[in-house]
Amino acid sequence: MKPPHPIQTLYLSAPDAIELVRRMGIGPCLRGMAEYVRADYLRWNAFDKSSRVASHSPDGVIELMPIADDQTYAFKYVNGHPRNTRLGLSTVMAFGVLADVATGAPVLLSELTLTTALRTAATSAVAALALARPGCRTMALVGNGAQSEFQALAFHHLLGIDTLRLFDSDPGATAKLQANLQGTGLTTVVCTSAAHAARGADIVTTVTADKTNATILTPDMLAPGMHINAVGGDCPGKTELHADVLRQAAVFVEYAPQTRIEGDIQQLPADFAVTELWEVLAGMRGGRASDAQVTVFDSVGFALEDFSALRFMRDMARALGVGQPIALIPALDDPKDLFGALHPHGARLRVVA
Amino acid sequence: MKPPHPIQTLYLSAPDAIELVRRMGIGPCLRGMAEYVRADYLRWNAFDKSSRVASHSPDGVIELMPIADDQTYAFKYVNGHPRNTRLGLSTVMAFGVLADVATGAPVLLSELTLTTALRTAATSAVAALALARPGCRTMALVGNGAQSEFQALAFHHLLGIDTLRLFDSDPGATAKLQANLQGTGLTTVVCTSAAHAARGADIVTTVTADKTNATILTPDMLAPGMHINAVGGDCPGKTELHADVLRQAAVFVEYAPQTRIEGDIQQLPADFAVTELWEVLAGMRGGRASDAQVTVFDSVGFALEDFSALRFMRDMARALGVGQPIALIPALDDPKDLFGALHPHGARLRVVA
Repeated sequence: MKPPHPIQTLYLSAPDAIELVRRMGIGPCLRGMAEYVRADYLRWNAFDKSSRVASHSPDGVIELMPIADDQTYAFKYVNGHPRNTRLGLSTVMAFGVLADVATGAPVLLSELTLTTALRTAATSAVAALALARPGCRTMALVGNGAQSEFQALAFHHLLGIDTLRLFDSDPGATAKLQANLQGTGLTTVVCTSAAHAARGADIVTTVTADKTNATILTPDMLAPGMHINAVGGDCPGKTELHADVLRQAAVFVEYAPQTRIEGDIQQLPADFAVTELWEVLAGMRGGRASDAQVTVFDSVGFALEDFSALRFMRDMARALGVGQPIALIPALDDPKDLFGALHPHGARLRVVA
Repeated sequence: MKPPHPIQTLYLSAPDAIELVRRMGIGPCLRGMAEYVRADYLRWNAFDKSSRVASHSPDGVIELMPIADDQTYAFKYVNGHPRNTRLGLSTVMAFGVLADVATGAPVLLSELTLTTALRTAATSAVAALALARPGCRTMALVGNGAQSEFQALAFHHLLGIDTLRLFDSDPGATAKLQANLQGTGLTTVVCTSAAHAARGADIVTTVTADKTNATILTPDMLAPGMHINAVGGDCPGKTELHADVLRQAAVFVEYAPQTRIEGDIQQLPADFAVTELWEVLAGMRGGRASDAQVTVFDSVGFALEDFSALRFMRDMARALGVGQPIALIPALDDPKDLFGALHPHGARLRVVA
C-alpha cells in the first residue's frame, strides 16, 4: 500500500489576497492577471464551457460558475445583492476553487471578492488592447463604485491612460475614487453628467451598479473611434447602453450564448452580429475595422476569467509564500477505510447507543 | 454609516468533523442526521431543486450540487474517481457551503467527505423506516467498502438491525468492515456470494463501487417482503440490480428526474412507475402495499440531503464549539470601497509602475 496521501488544499483568505496584492503592487498584479486571462483566451477551444448556474431570490442571485480544461477544474461562487450595502455588506462576494481533473482533489480555495475586481479590470484591459485605437490617453469612467479604481488602474498600467473623466450620480462615490487614486499618476476630472464625461474621451468605461435597464450611454455621446468598455450591464434586466449605441458599433463579447442573456445585447435580436473576444486575440477575426469605427466590449464576466484569476493567485501565492494549507479533505491511512478515520491511533470510536 | 460587518464563515475541516462525530458518538450522529434529512424531505415543495452539474473527464467526474429554500442556499462539490485509491486517495471527496439567501454571504464551509457517508446512510435508514417491514433484524451488506460501516451502523441504530450478512468480491474489504464493527453489538456473518448474503435477510443493502453495469442482485435472490437499499448504482453506466428485480418490486426514489439518469432505473423506460420518497414520508402516497411486496429504494444521493447534512453539521458544531471562523470574504469599512481594503490603517498602497 502506498503511504497516506496528505490532501492539502492551499487556502487564500481575503487578508491573504490583500497582502499578496500589496506585496506585488497593483500594477504588476493587474499586468500579471491580464497575461493569464489572455493566455487562457488563446486556448479557448481547450475548455469545457457552460453558462453559469443561477439561483434567484427576491433580494438577489447566487451563482456557480464552473469551467475546466483537461487538467484543471475551476468554479466560482458569487452573489449579487444590490441592497447589501445598507447592511454594511458588499453587493458582490465571491470565492472559488481550483481542482485537479485527474483526481478531483481541490488544490486551491481562494477568496474571489477582491480577485474578481482585479480580473474584471484586467479582462477589460485585454479587450481594449485588442480593440481600442492605439495611443488612447483619456478615459471616461461612468460609475465610480467598488469596481472603478480597478478599471482606472488597469487602463493606466496596461494602456497608458493618464486622464480620467469621472461621473457618478452619487458625488460621494466620485470623491472616494479620487481619494483612492491619489499618488497613482492619474489626472482626474470630475464631470457633471455621463455626456460631459464622454466628451473628448478615447475610451468610455461604464461600470454602474443599478439593477435596471438604464440608459447610461446614448448615441449622441459617441465620437468616431471611441472604444466603449461596458462592464455594468451583466444580468437579465440590467443594461447600460442605448440599443442604438450597439447598432452603430462593432460589438465584441466574451461568450456569446451567455452575453445574449446577460449583456447589453439582451436588448437586441438573437441574431445580432457579435464577435467573440478570443477570435480577435487569436487573429482569426479582425478587431476594429477603422480608426473611425466605434467598438463596444459588452462584458458580463465569464468563468474562464475566474479560471485564469485562480491560477494567477495560486502561482503568486506559492511564489510569495502567502496562504496556508487546510485539511478540507480527510487524509486516510487507507483510502478504502473512511470509517477508520474515526478511530485514529488505535483508539476505537466511542459508540453511544 | 453602519459599523463594518465582519463576514465570518464557520469552517469545519475534516479533522473537525471527525472530532464532532467522535464527541457525539456515531449513533446520535446518524440519528440526528436522519432527523434533519427527514425534516427537509417533509418540506419538499419549499426547495428550488435542480439536477447536479457534472464535468466529466476520462478519469472521473466533478459535480456541483446546488439547492435552496427561501432562507438558505447550499451546494456540494463532489468528485468520483474510481482509480484514486491506487494513488492513496479517496474515490469520493467532497466539501460544501451554506449561504444566506437574503445576502449571499457564505456562513459555513465544511468538509463533506465523511459527512456524505453519514448522510447517505442516514437517508437509507429514513427510507427503510418508511418502506421495510417492521421488526427487521438481519441485513445483507453487499459491498464492504468505504461506505459500508456507515450503512451498517445507521441500520443498527435506527432500525434495530442486529445481524449483518457480509459479501465483497475483495475479502480484505470484508475483514476491514468486521474489524471496524467490533464492539458495536452487531453480529457479522461472512458469506461467499451476494446470493448467500441475501439468504434469510430482511433487508439487502448493495453498496458496491465498480463503475459498470453490474448485476449484483438477480430475481432469484429475492424473498417476499424484502427491502432492497440500492446505494451503489448512482451514475450513468453504473447499476447494481438486474432489471427484473426492479420490475418485480415497488421502486422508490429521491428525485425522479435525476434518478432516471443516474439510478438503477436508468435500465428501464422513462415511464417506469416510481414513487418519490417525500410523498411516502408526507403520507401522500403509500409505501409497501403488503408484507409480501419487495420494495427497492433506488438511491443516488440528492442535493437536499447535503442541505440537511450541512445544516446538521453547522448546528452541532455551534453546540459543541467545534470549527473556527475564517475570513473568506473581506470585511470592509465601507462596502462601496473595495479598493480601500488595499490600504488599511491609513497606509497607501504601494504603486509599482
